[in-house]
Amino acid sequence: MKQLDMFGLLKKDMQYIEEQLYASIEGDHEELGETSLHLLKAGGKRLRPVFVLLGGKFGQYDLNKLAHVAIPLELIHSASLVHDDVIDNAETRRGQLTVKSKWDNRVAMYTGDYLYAKALMMATKLKNPQIHQILSKAMVQMSIGEMEQIRDFFNTEQSVRNYLLRIRRKTALLIAISCQLGAIAADAEPRVCNLLYRYGYNVGMAFQIRDDLLDLRGTEKQLGKPPGSDMRQGNITLPVIYALQDPKMRGSVLAEISRIRSMKGEADVSQAVALVVSSPGIQKAEELADRYIAKALKALDLLPDQKVKKNLRDIAHFVTRRTY
Amino acid sequence: MKQLDMFGLLKKDMQYIEEQLYASIEGDHEELGETSLHLLKAGGKRLRPVFVLLGGKFGQYDLNKLAHVAIPLELIHSASLVHDDVIDNAETRRGQLTVKSKWDNRVAMYTGDYLYAKALMMATKLKNPQIHQILSKAMVQMSIGEMEQIRDFFNTEQSVRNYLLRIRRKTALLIAISCQLGAIAADAEPRVCNLLYRYGYNVGMAFQIRDDLLDLRGTEKQLGKPPGSDMRQGNITLPVIYALQDPKMRGSVLAEISRIRSMKGEADVSQAVALVVSSPGIQKAEELADRYIAKALKALDLLPDQKVKKNLRDIAHFVTRRTY
Repeated sequence: MKQLDMFGLLKKDMQYIEEQLYASIEGDHEELGETSLHLLKAGGKRLRPVFVLLGGKFGQYDLNKLAHVAIPLELIHSASLVHDDVIDNAETRRGQLTVKSKWDNRVAMYTGDYLYAKALMMATKLKNPQIHQILSKAMVQMSIGEMEQIRDFFNTEQSVRNYLLRIRRKTALLIAISCQLGAIAADAEPRVCNLLYRYGYNVGMAFQIRDDLLDLRGTEKQLGKPPGSDMRQGNITLPVIYALQDPKMRGSVLAEISRIRSMKGEADVSQAVALVVSSPGIQKAEELADRYIAKALKALDLLPDQKVKKNLRDIAHFVTRRTY
Repeated sequence: MKQLDMFGLLKKDMQYIEEQLYASIEGDHEELGETSLHLLKAGGKRLRPVFVLLGGKFGQYDLNKLAHVAIPLELIHSASLVHDDVIDNAETRRGQLTVKSKWDNRVAMYTGDYLYAKALMMATKLKNPQIHQILSKAMVQMSIGEMEQIRDFFNTEQSVRNYLLRIRRKTALLIAISCQLGAIAADAEPRVCNLLYRYGYNVGMAFQIRDDLLDLRGTEKQLGKPPGSDMRQGNITLPVIYALQDPKMRGSVLAEISRIRSMKGEADVSQAVALVVSSPGIQKAEELADRYIAKALKALDLLPDQKVKKNLRDIAHFVTRRTY
């Protein structure tokens, strides 16, 4: 799934989506077009559009209709990233300069506003109020998740439950509705749409847990940014919460976090990363991710037989092994 | 129109809207509820909801339906203000601390994201795709307008046309669709909806020109902020553009703007304000505002006879005279 390679089935359609994605932000405003294109070209796996198309295979697959859901979802995802970068003060993302660093924070804020609005505008071309409602509800939840995240920075008292709620809003929900909306746009049965939501939700949870693990264990080359950035900015992820729960490690992890906090984003985090990596938190987080994958596969089993079930299964397995 | 006094007709309904406005941001998230409430309580004239209700009088007036348009429009307006305050680095608005100053820039950004999403989510409860489309299109245009505004800061070469395009996106469009969507939500005839749009657009243009004039001529008490804030932040408004076009004044206005720019938001602008106030730019801007009001009244004449035409006429006249 480095880009779309594993989706021979979707290759042509994903190329169309990619072209339409670029086209969607052209012609409104020169500079917003540039900033948006910069953001979109930085890439990403286009996971949300892929899920939309796969969801669409469970109904009357109509690429043009599906594009009007797939592109908004990718735009919403991108808008949330560009606002995230302002908050995280991130200079690079996926190895590329961020909008806030190539331009500035104000430009990044308005680029996000533009993309959110553009996403909805595109979705409203499908005259299906249910789709509009699902999208805007998810955006509300995402903004709540963002707020929770900045409130939980450096909060060493947060629970696993806290963390799960946060990644649910931040990541899992948008992936869940990607699968669901693909099916809805293809007029699939409600039961199928709900199962796809459940599949996507669980894959999304596992995906974010993996992402947080990768930030601790990946190399700078794999990540496109230095490892340990979550710890540096105070984002307390699942392995860290587990490490804090371990009586033998708690003291030293707390000391590291407090030192990192005092350095205001400039800390060398290699020792802190090594500490967490040596803790039981890694394995516990991996196990939880695996449990979410198992739930995703169970939802998949209940779906009607379709060739794409294999693709969805492959993605779930990919998520459990991914290194980028 | 200090608040809703002039609308005896709407008083009870506007109280309902006010309650529902506060209720709309309750219960999702404690802190986002607080920041949003702070923003909404800072007040404002609720001009957009008033226009929605008045527009609704041209069809089957249903307060509950109209609320699902009126509240989103006020939320979108508020979201744009809270993002504006981040850009302008504004400490106060309408005499109250801004969200970015009471909390911080990050909180202000996410409060705006939350309110934009919440607005759309509420509007999607009306299962009318046309309404969703008009709202999201306007949000796209607004974000373009915001971007134009920061690009035009301290741009002394901008044309009147530039300025008019900017305020069209920044202000007039949202007022235009407030009138239009009220009528659409009440199932009024398309011709009526279009005329209300035209009325609202022209009133909105005049409203913003007046607002920009007030910033030069109002007192701190009237404005709730020190006069000349536009000049201080580099927002070149219509009277200033006209003053720059005057060969006798151009040199001294340019010198003042360049001095203000070098002070990075800390300049004493009283001399610059006095200079523009003494220029022919004030009267020319007033004349243009009056021309927009005349166009608004003309659109009003073409609307079917309804008691509310008097209210709409009163608002148009109020805009031409307002001092707050």
